[in-house]
Amino acid sequence: MTAAPLSDDLLARFRAIVGDKHAVSGEADKAPYLVEERGLYQGRTPLVLRPGSTDEVAAICKLASETRTPLVPQGGNTGLVGGQIPHHGEIVISLRRLDKIREVDAASSTMICEAGVILANAHTAAEQADRIFPLWLGSEGSCTIGGNLSTNAGGIAALSYGIARDLVLGLEVVLADGRILRGLSKLKKDNTGYDLRNLFIGSEGTLGIITAAVLKLLPKPRTVETAFVGLASPQAALSLLNRAQAAAGATLTSFELISDVAVSFAVKHGPSLRAPLVGPYRWYVLMEISSPREDARTLIEDILSAAMEDGLADDAVIAASLEQRKMFWTLREVISPAQKPEGGSIKHDVSVPVAAVPTFLTDADAAVAKLIPGARAVAFGHLGDGNIHYNVSQPVGADKAAYLARWHEMNEVVHAIVLKHGGSISAEHGIGFLKRDELAHVKDPVALDLMRTLKRTLDPLDILNPGKVV
Amino acid sequence: MTAAPLSDDLLARFRAIVGDKHAVSGEADKAPYLVEERGLYQGRTPLVLRPGSTDEVAAICKLASETRTPLVPQGGNTGLVGGQIPHHGEIVISLRRLDKIREVDAASSTMICEAGVILANAHTAAEQADRIFPLWLGSEGSCTIGGNLSTNAGGIAALSYGIARDLVLGLEVVLADGRILRGLSKLKKDNTGYDLRNLFIGSEGTLGIITAAVLKLLPKPRTVETAFVGLASPQAALSLLNRAQAAAGATLTSFELISDVAVSFAVKHGPSLRAPLVGPYRWYVLMEISSPREDARTLIEDILSAAMEDGLADDAVIAASLEQRKMFWTLREVISPAQKPEGGSIKHDVSVPVAAVPTFLTDADAAVAKLIPGARAVAFGHLGDGNIHYNVSQPVGADKAAYLARWHEMNEVVHAIVLKHGGSISAEHGIGFLKRDELAHVKDPVALDLMRTLKRTLDPLDILNPGKVV
Repeated sequence: MTAAPLSDDLLARFRAIVGDKHAVSGEADKAPYLVEERGLYQGRTPLVLRPGSTDEVAAICKLASETRTPLVPQGGNTGLVGGQIPHHGEIVISLRRLDKIREVDAASSTMICEAGVILANAHTAAEQADRIFPLWLGSEGSCTIGGNLSTNAGGIAALSYGIARDLVLGLEVVLADGRILRGLSKLKKDNTGYDLRNLFIGSEGTLGIITAAVLKLLPKPRTVETAFVGLASPQAALSLLNRAQAAAGATLTSFELISDVAVSFAVKHGPSLRAPLVGPYRWYVLMEISSPREDARTLIEDILSAAMEDGLADDAVIAASLEQRKMFWTLREVISPAQKPEGGSIKHDVSVPVAAVPTFLTDADAAVAKLIPGARAVAFGHLGDGNIHYNVSQPVGADKAAYLARWHEMNEVVHAIVLKHGGSISAEHGIGFLKRDELAHVKDPVALDLMRTLKRTLDPLDILNPGKVV
Repeated sequence: MTAAPLSDDLLARFRAIVGDKHAVSGEADKAPYLVEERGLYQGRTPLVLRPGSTDEVAAICKLASETRTPLVPQGGNTGLVGGQIPHHGEIVISLRRLDKIREVDAASSTMICEAGVILANAHTAAEQADRIFPLWLGSEGSCTIGGNLSTNAGGIAALSYGIARDLVLGLEVVLADGRILRGLSKLKKDNTGYDLRNLFIGSEGTLGIITAAVLKLLPKPRTVETAFVGLASPQAALSLLNRAQAAAGATLTSFELISDVAVSFAVKHGPSLRAPLVGPYRWYVLMEISSPREDARTLIEDILSAAMEDGLADDAVIAASLEQRKMFWTLREVISPAQKPEGGSIKHDVSVPVAAVPTFLTDADAAVAKLIPGARAVAFGHLGDGNIHYNVSQPVGADKAAYLARWHEMNEVVHAIVLKHGGSISAEHGIGFLKRDELAHVKDPVALDLMRTLKRTLDPLDILNPGKVV
């Protein structure tokens, strides 16, 4: 599919909506909007529009509908599945200038953010009202609320606080034809009709363009404690998770499983990091307790000492300072970039029922070893959500290009195991462009048909992020 | 709108799907399916079908589509807005025989229930696995999971655990044309396409018929403490709520506001109940803390003693026994039936942003006093969700029929105040038949149009619960 070149006259009409200052067409200026972070995709576009208001977004969609001009919405351009890239020369509509925090309502524990608000700025605004907005992602310094919601982001605290979908009360959305759905409700309960909100959350900009959202805030926890645990197996980690949840309930806010390979890559390539435990151990858990009271320390100590007594955990260290806590989390966050210096990496962002994670890992390791002997599984992720980033680095010394050429072959092998366990081939990154064709093979056909029907209904001219998701 | 009478031949084809034994057509046998609990509506039907499997539901929908025969799905027939009643002679499809709990998976903390499982039975099954399914409603002895989900039920613990929508991982749904959407996923994270699940949850059987669901289970709390508090105003209750949430976090599982009138009605008409506090006080709060640890008692005592010291609460009693705890909750539950002996009652199930509840109550009381002097506001509900059941009983000695004749007039007055606060005219009971026409006046027109578009798309022949919601 290649879009016909857009006429200068039409481009001028689009430019006029946002004003020349905010219509980007120089090659160098456009470049940052066109490359995907991993370098998997290079898009092209005649024009990047940077609207400054919901009305401008609406005017763009209206003109796009009238002229059947495809648009690709984009936030912080941090997506990992190519959903935000103009693969076929579409006009890019960047929401970054919609960066106002319209309101922080501490009494109702809500915050109204426009789509272009950087996630880290939303955190700061919440903090200033003595609240938290509990969505934390590695890319929070550059990703935006609009992108977080349109991809239904997950992150490191979803275990207790939920995924993006769970943190939204209301949405303002521009529809394909330019109408504005004004749904900025602060209500926790509203049963007046169909749930339109969740239709747009996670639809990756293919059904409408989210321009603002009412986000849920929560009270700031009084005490937070973070521990790094060494243990023998994912099964031991699962047992520890169950115990920790039984003891700490909703105050267990993070529970990340990390393999030894992932830790060694991070320590080797990360910025002056040391391994938190002498070890080495085959597996690690990074866990955090966030309590409204003064008891996080006692809680985490009790959980860990019992686990060590019972042989579930081999060693554990609780962060002794804010600095050490940061170091634990930095280690967790650099796992992704630390795979790059190790050569080609084939990625899987999968989920299975929580109880099936250990079996999944055993099966996947065996299948990968059989497919490409010497390939190194870098498994890490959100055990409490059943969500594992099962990435596989090339064998030491192998040819990178030859290895990466087997991307789909390995995906097929790993995803087959995921599906056998009733899992998902995209737990939190979405479908975008990368997994669209594969989705057609693994999704329930009735669900897929219903998705296509919804797409045709909400975007009959296929102008919103065409060729993505469905 | 009146449906044309169905031919004997067509009725026989429907009967054949479920078998004669499960096709109800005798007047006396049909009666329990036709009356709504409050007696507001009396439906009529030639036939009640009681399918015993998802495939039978699918066959019914397929035949209904082929013959354009409207269907009204029904669970426990406890709905309060007439959504489950065949107002125009439609065939009723009762899901009650789909009452299997297909699986309880303690390791993954999930349970698969068919639509006809009584909510109380789901609770028992969860308990047996040392888990809870945290949706509690007054009608739990007769309402069904299918009804709970299709109406997105709320209840008394939504404050911490969420509403029905938040407690579902996957759904099996029969579509209007008889196709089966097989989405019984146990995954906490699955970003493979549009969120179809939430489209059906809360759509009151107008977009598809839910036949089974994967429900989230949670660990059973180790300690539960329940208190009855007397206080001066909703503002004081709101301050107490904020403090309790700051201190107890997610372990604050219920926070019910109850007016003095509501308590006095309950004590007067309830089954051998006494007022828990000597009082009387103008307002009461029923609060509960459910903790994974041994600390619920200390927590609730600390919160209440601080509140009393600071003059937020005037008196408080913590349930000293399971029996006393039950008595507190019985008092809360009999508020609804206790309004009946007091004459005509005009109902409002509304929500506003949590912080706006006190102002809403002041404004509504004033407006009602002006409209019908002597009318008695019976306000109670889920303060933590901003959800108040603002019912108004007739003045003592007034004519019941004349009072009830002013139902819509009073609704208009109260709902105008709700809307002024950015609230909802149906917080948890849904739209059904009762509020359908009013919805058209209060809903954002773009949202309403989108709802109608979705209805036409998913049920183009208008056979699923026609005339409800939209």
